Amino acid sequence: MSTSPAIVAVDWGTSSFRLWMMSRDGTVLAEHRSHEGMSEVADRGFGPVLESHLLALAAPATLPVVICGMAGSRQGWVEAGYIDTPADVTTIGERATIVPGTGRRIIIIPGLAVRSESEPDVMRGEETQLLGAHLEMPGGERYCMPGTHSKWVNMNGASVNRFETFMTGELFSVLSAKTILVHSTGGEGKVDANDPAFLTGVRDGWARPEKITQQLFSIRAGQLLYNHANDENRARLSGLLIGTEFAGAGVRGDEQIGLVASGALQRLYHAALLACGVNVRDIDADVAVRRGLMESWQRYSNTSGDLKHE
Amino acid sequence: MSTSPAIVAVDWGTSSFRLWMMSRDGTVLAEHRSHEGMSEVADRGFGPVLESHLLALAAPATLPVVICGMAGSRQGWVEAGYIDTPADVTTIGERATIVPGTGRRIIIIPGLAVRSESEPDVMRGEETQLLGAHLEMPGGERYCMPGTHSKWVNMNGASVNRFETFMTGELFSVLSAKTILVHSTGGEGKVDANDPAFLTGVRDGWARPEKITQQLFSIRAGQLLYNHANDENRARLSGLLIGTEFAGAGVRGDEQIGLVASGALQRLYHAALLACGVNVRDIDADVAVRRGLMESWQRYSNTSGDLKHE
Repeated sequence: MSTSPAIVAVDWGTSSFRLWMMSRDGTVLAEHRSHEGMSEVADRGFGPVLESHLLALAAPATLPVVICGMAGSRQGWVEAGYIDTPADVTTIGERATIVPGTGRRIIIIPGLAVRSESEPDVMRGEETQLLGAHLEMPGGERYCMPGTHSKWVNMNGASVNRFETFMTGELFSVLSAKTILVHSTGGEGKVDANDPAFLTGVRDGWARPEKITQQLFSIRAGQLLYNHANDENRARLSGLLIGTEFAGAGVRGDEQIGLVASGALQRLYHAALLACGVNVRDIDADVAVRRGLMESWQRYSNTSGDLKHE
Repeated sequence: MSTSPAIVAVDWGTSSFRLWMMSRDGTVLAEHRSHEGMSEVADRGFGPVLESHLLALAAPATLPVVICGMAGSRQGWVEAGYIDTPADVTTIGERATIVPGTGRRIIIIPGLAVRSESEPDVMRGEETQLLGAHLEMPGGERYCMPGTHSKWVNMNGASVNRFETFMTGELFSVLSAKTILVHSTGGEGKVDANDPAFLTGVRDGWARPEKITQQLFSIRAGQLLYNHANDENRARLSGLLIGTEFAGAGVRGDEQIGLVASGALQRLYHAALLACGVNVRDIDADVAVRRGLMESWQRYSNTSGDLKHE
């Protein structure tokens, strides 16, 4: 049974495309990863790009496709709307939007929105990860989902009470490549989670977030006056921005936080949270999004009366 | 006497070139402004660019030229070094560097440096404005010098005790043009100092600087959920960054601050400081830099034994 495909699950972001063919019990039968994110495929069209992957996998026309991420945004394939907080994350599948006219059953999961005039916020893709994380770690109350736009989520059971987005990843990219800091932080080396410059940056950003725009320039000054190396500066920049995110999210040293991440970001945030005394519980972001997509499909097909696939 | 040229004063920044031919009493006899900043002239060479302006003015070969700004940086014309804080700002002319081999008497004013391993900082060009501001407003203890890299300076008499740089202007440029915020803040309209979105942004950034990287994304969310207009979003972005600068500089509501600025930036910072209850004293940045350049030349020629020019 575990080798029979049940769904094709797709996490379709701004800059990345990830597809898994999965059996009912979540076994991954095939995986595709590419840079065919929303901004890449706008010209070619979402349908043809998806179909080329499905053809390569010889996916039967009856196999349902469940998509989360920016493909459901206004600039995406079909707008999938938002569910307002507080939102029961287990219901996102029921509210999925059907992609019409493809000859396949394709649904896109909606995002979540904090509809507040003073503190509006949105997520798209992370709600599906969050559903998976909630199933992986029931009872978790606070989740950190690092990325280009890091999300911090407060939950009560399955209910998302509120969340906040921090532009940490995008700030790191643009500051290190498009500002005066390019002279001090340019280079190819990855930031090492154990680099003292990274961890000092985290603690400085966390302790004195009000200094962030000054601390940024200070990296440049440190290079001019002390010849600080680019690798060290890049690590400090990353740490400062992550520490500022922690301050904004109100991280305290004694709490438990579920870290939904993978790869290099998981290592950086794990080390950063530990450096602030947090009790970190790791949840692999890939595992979480796959589980969220599978759960969403089951919820969708249960409530829509759609035929189940074994 | 006031129509006889005494010096050519040049403020040569990264992206701008400003030149004044002045008489001994500070009367401006001619003014040139262009975009021939350091990054523009790197290929053509500083000497030829300056000489073309001097030729256009029919400046006598004996007329001294006094330069401040990035022309004195390592990537500039001739490196003019830094004076470490605490520094007597009236002495910057004595420490000027001579540009050799031009057939003219050309000097470049040094920058100032905070040589501290933990909080290094540098300025180049603002030290000359600061000298002028000090002469315009003796007894001022705290100066705000807004710009691409805003400087905040604490003085005791003529002594610069410390200063800090905030990347406010550059952050505004890069965030509004090179990040997801381009969709929400793009446009040509100038931010209006009386726009409520600007002033609310200032107060929010000042009151909760730790939220800055979240507030940035919230601008995008506000556009998606409430269709907030780009002009309003751009005003809020500007306000948030300036308010965060104020928080980092430790602005209190009851203090007096000398604002060294001109044009649109002067209007924005003046309104922003007033919104925080600060007692603002305005000093025109152009007046300040010209006065600083003239004073520097006099100090240089007095101490170097150089011939004075009437």
